[in-house]
Amino acid sequence: MKLYNYWRSSASWRVRIALAYKNVAYEYVAVDIKPGVAQQNAAPYQKLNPMQQVPTLVLDDGRQLAQSMAILEYLEETVPRPALLPADPWLRARARQLAELVNAGIQPFQNLPTMARVSELGGDAKEFVRGYIARGLDALEASAEATAGTFLVADAPSFADVCLVPQLNAARRFGLEVARWPLLARVEEACMRLQPFVAAHADRQPDAEGAKK
Amino acid sequence: MKLYNYWRSSASWRVRIALAYKNVAYEYVAVDIKPGVAQQNAAPYQKLNPMQQVPTLVLDDGRQLAQSMAILEYLEETVPRPALLPADPWLRARARQLAELVNAGIQPFQNLPTMARVSELGGDAKEFVRGYIARGLDALEASAEATAGTFLVADAPSFADVCLVPQLNAARRFGLEVARWPLLARVEEACMRLQPFVAAHADRQPDAEGAKK
Repeated sequence: MKLYNYWRSSASWRVRIALAYKNVAYEYVAVDIKPGVAQQNAAPYQKLNPMQQVPTLVLDDGRQLAQSMAILEYLEETVPRPALLPADPWLRARARQLAELVNAGIQPFQNLPTMARVSELGGDAKEFVRGYIARGLDALEASAEATAGTFLVADAPSFADVCLVPQLNAARRFGLEVARWPLLARVEEACMRLQPFVAAHADRQPDAEGAKK
Repeated sequence: MKLYNYWRSSASWRVRIALAYKNVAYEYVAVDIKPGVAQQNAAPYQKLNPMQQVPTLVLDDGRQLAQSMAILEYLEETVPRPALLPADPWLRARARQLAELVNAGIQPFQNLPTMARVSELGGDAKEFVRGYIARGLDALEASAEATAGTFLVADAPSFADVCLVPQLNAARRFGLEVARWPLLARVEEACMRLQPFVAAHADRQPDAEGAKK
Protein backbone atom coordinates (compact mmCIF):
# COMPACT_ATOMS: atom_id res chain seq x y z
CA MET A 1 0.00 0.00 0.00
CA LYS A 2 0.94 3.65 -0.38
CA LEU A 3 0.73 6.34 2.27
CA TYR A 4 0.31 9.84 0.84
CA ASN A 5 1.54 12.03 3.65
CA TYR A 6 3.71 14.91 4.88
CA TRP A 7 6.53 14.54 7.37
CA ARG A 8 5.32 17.11 9.91
CA SER A 9 1.55 16.57 9.59
CA SER A 10 0.44 15.14 12.91
CA ALA A 11 -2.38 13.14 11.32
CA SER A 12 0.14 11.56 8.89
CA TRP A 13 2.49 10.84 11.76
CA ARG A 14 -0.21 8.92 13.68
CA VAL A 15 -0.72 6.57 10.74
CA ARG A 16 3.04 6.06 10.33
CA ILE A 17 3.27 5.02 14.00
CA ALA A 18 0.46 2.48 13.58
CA LEU A 19 1.94 1.05 10.37
CA ALA A 20 5.36 0.70 12.02
CA TYR A 21 3.88 -0.77 15.20
CA LYS A 22 2.01 -3.40 13.21
CA ASN A 23 4.97 -4.10 10.89
CA VAL A 24 3.04 -3.15 7.76
CA ALA A 25 5.30 -2.26 4.81
CA TYR A 26 4.23 0.72 2.70
CA GLU A 27 5.46 3.08 0.05
CA TYR A 28 5.99 6.63 1.33
CA VAL A 29 4.52 9.20 -1.05
CA ALA A 30 5.34 12.75 0.02
CA VAL A 31 2.66 15.43 -0.45
CA ASP A 32 4.12 18.88 0.11
CA ILE A 33 1.43 20.85 1.95
CA LYS A 34 3.59 23.93 2.63
CA PRO A 35 1.80 27.19 1.77
CA GLY A 36 2.88 28.22 -1.73
CA VAL A 37 3.37 24.60 -2.80
CA ALA A 38 0.11 23.04 -1.56
CA GLN A 39 0.22 19.85 -3.63
CA GLN A 40 -2.86 18.66 -1.73
CA ASN A 41 -4.93 21.17 -3.68
CA ALA A 42 -3.81 19.95 -7.11
CA ALA A 43 -6.36 17.97 -9.11
CA PRO A 44 -4.63 14.54 -8.96
CA TYR A 45 -4.50 14.54 -5.15
CA GLN A 46 -7.96 16.04 -4.79
CA LYS A 47 -9.30 12.99 -6.62
CA LEU A 48 -7.74 10.76 -3.93
CA ASN A 49 -8.86 12.98 -1.09
CA PRO A 50 -11.69 15.48 -1.72
CA MET A 51 -10.93 17.19 1.62
CA GLN A 52 -7.44 17.97 0.23
CA GLN A 53 -5.80 16.77 3.41
CA VAL A 54 -3.10 14.29 4.32
CA PRO A 55 -2.86 11.39 4.96
CA THR A 56 -4.51 9.11 2.43
CA LEU A 57 -3.87 5.37 2.43
CA VAL A 58 -4.13 3.74 -1.01
CA LEU A 59 -4.39 -0.04 -1.23
CA ASP A 60 -2.72 -2.06 -3.99
CA ASP A 61 -6.03 -2.32 -5.86
CA GLY A 62 -6.45 1.47 -5.81
CA ARG A 63 -9.05 1.80 -3.04
CA GLN A 64 -8.55 4.96 -1.01
CA LEU A 65 -9.00 5.69 2.66
CA ALA A 66 -8.73 9.10 4.32
CA GLN A 67 -9.05 10.42 7.90
CA SER A 68 -6.35 9.23 10.28
CA MET A 69 -8.74 7.82 12.89
CA ALA A 70 -10.58 5.76 10.24
CA ILE A 71 -7.22 4.46 9.00
CA LEU A 72 -6.14 3.52 12.56
CA GLU A 73 -9.40 1.60 13.08
CA TYR A 74 -9.01 -0.14 9.69
CA LEU A 75 -5.47 -1.24 10.54
CA GLU A 76 -6.62 -2.44 13.96
CA GLU A 77 -9.35 -4.58 12.37
CA THR A 78 -7.25 -6.00 9.53
CA VAL A 79 -3.90 -6.37 11.37
CA PRO A 80 -5.06 -6.94 14.95
CA ARG A 81 -1.66 -7.91 16.41
CA PRO A 82 0.15 -6.19 17.96
CA ALA A 83 -2.93 -4.36 19.19
CA LEU A 84 -3.25 -0.60 19.53
CA LEU A 85 -6.47 -0.84 21.54
CA PRO A 86 -6.93 -2.63 24.89
CA ALA A 87 -9.16 -5.73 25.03
CA ASP A 88 -11.58 -4.34 27.62
CA PRO A 89 -14.50 -2.40 26.02
CA TRP A 90 -14.37 0.38 28.59
CA LEU A 91 -10.62 0.92 28.22
CA ARG A 92 -10.99 0.82 24.43
CA ALA A 93 -13.59 3.56 24.76
CA ARG A 94 -11.35 5.67 26.97
CA ALA A 95 -8.39 5.23 24.59
CA ARG A 96 -10.60 6.48 21.75
CA GLN A 97 -11.84 9.36 23.91
CA LEU A 98 -8.26 10.56 24.51
CA ALA A 99 -7.38 10.11 20.83
CA GLU A 100 -10.45 12.08 19.73
CA LEU A 101 -9.69 14.84 22.21
CA VAL A 102 -6.55 15.42 20.12
CA ASN A 103 -8.06 14.56 16.72
CA ALA A 104 -11.22 16.67 16.93
CA GLY A 105 -10.39 18.93 19.88
CA ILE A 106 -6.93 20.25 19.03
CA GLN A 107 -5.56 19.28 15.63
CA PRO A 108 -8.22 20.92 13.41
CA PHE A 109 -7.22 24.29 14.84
CA GLN A 110 -3.50 23.94 14.20
CA ASN A 111 -3.54 23.00 10.55
CA LEU A 112 -2.19 25.34 7.91
CA PRO A 113 -5.47 26.39 6.20
CA THR A 114 -6.98 27.31 9.59
CA MET A 115 -3.94 29.42 10.46
CA ALA A 116 -4.14 31.14 7.07
CA ARG A 117 -7.81 31.97 7.66
CA VAL A 118 -7.14 33.39 11.13
CA SER A 119 -4.36 35.58 9.68
CA GLU A 120 -6.69 36.82 6.93
CA LEU A 121 -9.10 37.93 9.66
CA GLY A 122 -6.31 39.98 11.21
CA GLY A 123 -5.66 37.61 14.11
CA ASP A 124 -2.39 36.27 15.51
CA ALA A 125 -2.54 32.75 14.10
CA LYS A 126 0.22 31.35 16.32
CA GLU A 127 -1.44 32.69 19.45
CA PHE A 128 -4.80 31.29 18.27
CA VAL A 129 -3.25 27.84 17.84
CA ARG A 130 -1.30 28.01 21.11
CA GLY A 131 -4.54 28.66 22.98
CA TYR A 132 -6.21 25.57 21.53
CA ILE A 133 -3.20 23.35 22.15
CA ALA A 134 -2.76 24.50 25.76
CA ARG A 135 -6.45 24.15 26.61
CA GLY A 136 -6.64 20.75 24.90
CA LEU A 137 -3.53 19.35 26.56
CA ASP A 138 -4.72 20.60 29.97
CA ALA A 139 -7.89 18.56 29.39
CA LEU A 140 -5.94 15.57 28.09
CA GLU A 141 -3.72 15.54 31.18
CA ALA A 142 -6.81 15.63 33.43
CA SER A 143 -8.73 13.06 31.36
CA ALA A 144 -5.86 10.58 31.26
CA GLU A 145 -5.43 10.39 35.04
CA ALA A 146 -8.18 7.79 35.38
CA THR A 147 -6.45 5.22 33.14
CA ALA A 148 -2.75 6.06 32.87
CA GLY A 149 -0.07 3.48 33.57
CA THR A 150 3.15 3.42 31.61
CA PHE A 151 1.05 4.74 28.71
CA LEU A 152 -2.11 6.86 28.59
CA VAL A 153 -4.31 3.79 28.99
CA ALA A 154 -2.67 1.18 31.20
CA ASP A 155 0.63 -0.40 30.19
CA ALA A 156 0.51 -0.81 26.43
CA PRO A 157 0.48 1.86 23.72
CA SER A 158 -2.92 2.68 22.22
CA PHE A 159 -4.52 5.11 19.77
CA ALA A 160 -4.25 7.67 22.59
CA ASP A 161 -0.44 7.52 22.62
CA VAL A 162 -0.35 7.44 18.82
CA CYS A 163 -2.13 10.82 18.86
CA LEU A 164 -0.19 12.18 21.85
CA VAL A 165 3.35 12.02 20.45
CA PRO A 166 2.80 14.14 17.29
CA GLN A 167 0.65 16.56 19.30
CA LEU A 168 3.38 17.22 21.88
CA ASN A 169 5.81 17.83 19.04
CA ALA A 170 3.42 20.45 17.65
CA ALA A 171 3.07 22.00 21.13
CA ARG A 172 6.83 22.56 21.28
CA ARG A 173 6.86 23.95 17.75
CA PHE A 174 4.31 26.55 18.84
CA GLY A 175 6.46 27.54 21.81
CA LEU A 176 4.76 25.66 24.66
CA GLU A 177 6.70 23.99 27.48
CA VAL A 178 5.69 20.34 27.64
CA ALA A 179 6.78 20.16 31.30
CA ARG A 180 3.44 21.84 32.06
CA TRP A 181 1.87 18.39 31.52
CA PRO A 182 3.99 15.96 33.63
CA LEU A 183 1.85 12.90 32.90
CA LEU A 184 1.85 13.52 29.14
CA ALA A 185 5.60 14.21 29.14
CA ARG A 186 6.30 10.98 31.03
CA VAL A 187 4.17 8.93 28.62
CA GLU A 188 5.86 10.54 25.61
CA GLU A 189 9.23 9.39 27.01
CA ALA A 190 7.91 5.84 27.35
CA CYS A 191 6.65 5.94 23.74
CA MET A 192 9.97 7.20 22.41
CA ARG A 193 11.70 4.18 23.90
CA LEU A 194 9.77 2.06 21.35
CA GLN A 195 11.26 1.59 17.89
CA PRO A 196 8.00 2.14 15.90
CA PHE A 197 7.56 5.55 17.51
CA VAL A 198 11.17 6.43 16.67
CA ALA A 199 10.84 5.26 13.06
CA ALA A 200 7.65 7.27 12.52
CA HIS A 201 9.09 10.54 13.87
CA ALA A 202 8.70 13.51 11.53
CA ASP A 203 12.43 14.21 11.40
CA ARG A 204 13.16 10.71 10.11
CA GLN A 205 10.94 10.95 7.02
CA PRO A 206 12.31 11.28 3.47
CA ASP A 207 10.67 14.70 2.92
CA ALA A 208 11.79 16.19 6.26
CA GLU A 209 13.65 19.49 6.13
CA GLY A 210 17.05 19.73 7.78
CA ALA A 211 16.51 16.44 9.52
CA LYS A 212 18.55 13.55 10.87
CA LYS A 213 17.74 11.09 8.16
CA MET B 1 -27.05 5.71 32.04
CA LYS B 2 -27.20 9.51 31.76
CA LEU B 3 -26.47 11.59 28.69
CA TYR B 4 -25.30 15.12 29.50
CA ASN B 5 -26.11 17.00 26.33
CA TYR B 6 -27.63 20.01 24.59
CA TRP B 7 -30.51 19.84 22.14
CA ARG B 8 -28.83 21.61 19.23
CA SER B 9 -25.25 20.35 19.71
CA SER B 10 -24.52 18.17 16.70
CA ALA B 11 -22.16 15.92 18.67
CA SER B 12 -24.92 15.36 21.29
CA TRP B 13 -27.43 14.65 18.54
CA ARG B 14 -25.22 11.92 17.04
CA VAL B 15 -25.18 10.05 20.35
CA ARG B 16 -28.95 10.44 20.76
CA ILE B 17 -29.46 8.85 17.32
CA ALA B 18 -27.25 5.88 18.23
CA LEU B 19 -28.94 5.37 21.62
CA ALA B 20 -32.38 5.48 19.98
CA TYR B 21 -31.30 3.20 17.12
CA LYS B 22 -29.99 0.62 19.59
CA ASN B 23 -32.98 0.97 21.92
CA VAL B 24 -30.85 2.01 24.88
CA ALA B 25 -32.82 3.86 27.57
CA TYR B 26 -31.10 6.85 29.17
CA GLU B 27 -31.75 9.85 31.35
CA TYR B 28 -31.55 13.16 29.47
CA VAL B 29 -29.52 15.72 31.42
CA ALA B 30 -29.58 19.13 29.73
CA VAL B 31 -26.39 21.21 29.80
CA ASP B 32 -27.09 24.75 28.61
CA ILE B 33 -24.09 25.75 26.51
CA LYS B 34 -25.57 29.06 25.28
CA PRO B 35 -23.10 31.96 25.60
CA GLY B 36 -23.87 33.78 28.84
CA VAL B 37 -25.09 30.59 30.53
CA ALA B 38 -22.27 28.18 29.63
CA GLN B 39 -23.03 25.49 32.19
CA GLN B 40 -20.29 23.36 30.59
CA ASN B 41 -17.70 25.68 32.12
CA ALA B 42 -19.01 25.33 35.69
CA ALA B 43 -16.89 23.23 38.06
CA PRO B 44 -19.30 20.27 38.45
CA TYR B 45 -19.49 19.65 34.70
CA GLN B 46 -15.81 20.28 34.16
CA LYS B 47 -15.11 17.39 36.50
CA LEU B 48 -17.16 15.12 34.21
CA ASN B 49 -15.63 16.52 31.04
CA PRO B 50 -12.34 18.44 31.28
CA MET B 51 -12.77 19.68 27.68
CA GLN B 52 -15.98 21.40 28.87
CA GLN B 53 -17.92 20.05 25.91
CA VAL B 54 -21.09 18.07 25.37
CA PRO B 55 -21.95 15.22 25.23
CA THR B 56 -20.77 13.12 28.16
CA LEU B 57 -22.19 9.65 28.80
CA VAL B 58 -22.20 8.63 32.46
CA LEU B 59 -22.75 4.97 33.33
CA ASP B 60 -24.76 3.86 36.36
CA ASP B 61 -21.53 3.23 38.30
CA GLY B 62 -20.33 6.78 37.62
CA ARG B 63 -17.78 6.05 34.89
CA GLN B 64 -17.64 8.87 32.34
CA LEU B 65 -17.12 8.84 28.59
CA ALA B 66 -16.69 11.90 26.37
CA GLN B 67 -16.17 12.48 22.63
CA SER B 68 -19.10 11.50 20.43
CA MET B 69 -17.10 9.18 18.16
CA ALA B 70 -15.70 7.27 21.15
CA ILE B 71 -19.24 6.96 22.53
CA LEU B 72 -20.55 5.65 19.17
CA GLU B 73 -17.79 3.03 19.05
CA TYR B 74 -18.48 2.03 22.67
CA LEU B 75 -22.19 1.57 21.96
CA GLU B 76 -21.38 -0.43 18.81
CA GLU B 77 -19.13 -2.78 20.80
CA THR B 78 -21.42 -3.21 23.80
CA VAL B 79 -24.82 -3.16 22.01
CA PRO B 80 -23.88 -4.59 18.61
CA ARG B 81 -27.43 -5.06 17.28
CA PRO B 82 -28.85 -3.28 15.42
CA ALA B 83 -25.48 -2.39 13.93
CA LEU B 84 -24.38 1.10 12.95
CA LEU B 85 -21.31 -0.14 11.07
CA PRO B 86 -21.31 -2.54 8.10
CA ALA B 87 -19.79 -6.02 8.53
CA ASP B 88 -17.17 -5.65 5.78
CA PRO B 89 -13.89 -4.12 7.08
CA TRP B 90 -13.46 -1.85 4.06
CA LEU B 91 -17.00 -0.49 4.28
CA ARG B 92 -16.59 0.00 8.03
CA ALA B 93 -13.47 2.02 7.29
CA ARG B 94 -15.27 4.14 4.70
CA ALA B 95 -18.21 4.75 7.07
CA ARG B 96 -15.74 5.97 9.69
CA GLN B 97 -13.95 8.12 7.10
CA LEU B 98 -17.20 9.92 6.23
CA ALA B 99 -18.10 10.30 9.92
CA GLU B 100 -14.64 11.75 10.72
CA LEU B 101 -14.87 14.14 7.79
CA VAL B 102 -17.78 15.72 9.69
CA ASN B 103 -16.41 15.16 13.21
CA ALA B 104 -12.87 16.48 12.69
CA GLY B 105 -13.25 18.33 9.39
CA ILE B 106 -16.34 20.47 9.93
CA GLN B 107 -17.83 20.41 13.43
CA PRO B 108 -14.83 21.80 15.37
CA PHE B 109 -15.13 25.02 13.36
CA GLN B 110 -18.82 25.57 13.99
CA ASN B 111 -18.91 25.29 17.74
CA LEU B 112 -19.69 28.28 19.93
CA PRO B 113 -16.23 28.89 21.48
CA THR B 114 -14.62 28.88 18.01
CA MET B 115 -17.18 31.39 16.74
CA ALA B 116 -16.55 33.61 19.79
CA ARG B 117 -12.80 33.54 19.13
CA VAL B 118 -13.21 34.44 15.46
CA SER B 119 -15.45 37.37 16.45
CA GLU B 120 -12.87 38.56 18.98
CA LEU B 121 -10.32 38.65 16.15
CA GLY B 122 -12.64 40.93 14.21
CA GLY B 123 -13.83 38.29 11.77
CA ASP B 124 -17.33 37.46 10.56
CA ALA B 125 -17.91 34.28 12.57
CA LYS B 126 -20.95 33.13 10.57
CA GLU B 127 -19.11 33.53 7.28
CA PHE B 128 -16.09 31.68 8.74
CA VAL B 129 -18.32 28.76 9.75
CA ARG B 130 -20.26 28.76 6.46
CA GLY B 131 -16.97 28.39 4.55
CA TYR B 132 -15.98 25.30 6.55
CA ILE B 133 -19.40 23.70 6.25
CA ALA B 134 -19.65 24.28 2.50
CA ARG B 135 -16.14 23.03 1.79
CA GLY B 136 -16.65 20.01 4.07
CA LEU B 137 -20.01 19.03 2.62
CA ASP B 138 -18.65 19.39 -0.94
CA ALA B 139 -15.96 16.87 0.05
CA LEU B 140 -18.49 14.63 1.81
CA GLU B 141 -20.72 14.54 -1.28
CA ALA B 142 -17.71 13.59 -3.45
CA SER B 143 -16.35 11.06 -0.94
CA ALA B 144 -19.69 9.29 -0.46
CA GLU B 145 -20.22 8.56 -4.16
CA ALA B 146 -18.07 5.42 -4.00
CA THR B 147 -20.26 3.69 -1.38
CA ALA B 148 -23.70 5.33 -1.33
CA GLY B 149 -26.86 3.29 -1.62
CA THR B 150 -30.00 4.24 0.26
CA PHE B 151 -27.62 5.58 2.92
CA LEU B 152 -24.08 6.97 2.72
CA VAL B 153 -22.58 3.49 2.91
CA ALA B 154 -24.78 0.93 1.14
CA ASP B 155 -28.32 0.28 2.34
CA ALA B 156 -28.22 0.53 6.14
CA PRO B 157 -27.57 3.55 8.35
CA SER B 158 -24.05 3.87 9.74
CA PHE B 159 -21.93 6.29 11.77
CA ALA B 160 -21.69 8.32 8.55
CA ASP B 161 -25.45 8.98 8.47
CA VAL B 162 -25.50 9.58 12.23
CA CYS B 163 -23.04 12.45 11.64
CA LEU B 164 -24.71 13.67 8.43
CA VAL B 165 -28.17 14.49 9.77
CA PRO B 166 -27.12 16.95 12.52
CA GLN B 167 -24.55 18.48 10.16
CA LEU B 168 -27.12 19.26 7.46
CA ASN B 169 -29.32 20.84 10.11
CA ALA B 170 -26.40 23.10 11.06
CA ALA B 171 -25.79 23.91 7.39
CA ARG B 172 -29.35 25.23 7.07
CA ARG B 173 -29.01 27.17 10.31
CA PHE B 174 -26.00 28.95 8.84
CA GLY B 175 -27.93 29.84 5.71
CA LEU B 176 -26.74 27.20 3.25
CA GLU B 177 -29.05 25.52 0.71
CA VAL B 178 -28.83 21.77 1.22
CA ALA B 179 -30.02 21.20 -2.38
CA ARG B 180 -26.41 21.98 -3.36
CA TRP B 181 -25.61 18.41 -2.22
CA PRO B 182 -28.21 16.16 -3.90
CA LEU B 183 -26.75 12.88 -2.61
CA LEU B 184 -26.55 14.12 0.97
CA ALA B 185 -30.07 15.58 0.80
CA ARG B 186 -31.46 12.30 -0.52
CA VAL B 187 -29.78 10.29 2.25
CA GLU B 188 -31.03 12.72 4.88
CA GLU B 189 -34.58 12.08 3.65
CA ALA B 190 -34.05 8.32 3.96
CA CYS B 191 -32.74 8.77 7.51
CA MET B 192 -35.69 10.93 8.55
CA ARG B 193 -38.08 8.12 7.57
CA LEU B 194 -36.57 6.12 10.47
CA GLN B 195 -38.06 6.57 13.94
CA PRO B 196 -34.72 6.76 15.85
CA PHE B 197 -33.60 9.67 13.69
CA VAL B 198 -36.93 11.42 14.30
CA ALA B 199 -36.79 10.84 18.08
CA ALA B 200 -33.23 12.19 18.32
CA HIS B 201 -33.97 15.41 16.40
CA ALA B 202 -32.91 18.60 18.19
CA ASP B 203 -36.41 20.08 18.13
CA ARG B 204 -37.84 17.07 20.00
CA GLN B 205 -35.57 17.38 23.03
CA PRO B 206 -36.78 18.59 26.45
CA ASP B 207 -34.44 21.62 26.43
CA ALA B 208 -35.29 22.72 22.87
CA GLU B 209 -36.43 26.31 22.40
CA GLY B 210 -39.73 26.97 20.67
CA ALA B 211 -39.92 23.37 19.58
CA LYS B 212 -42.53 20.79 18.69
CA LYS B 213 -42.17 18.67 21.78
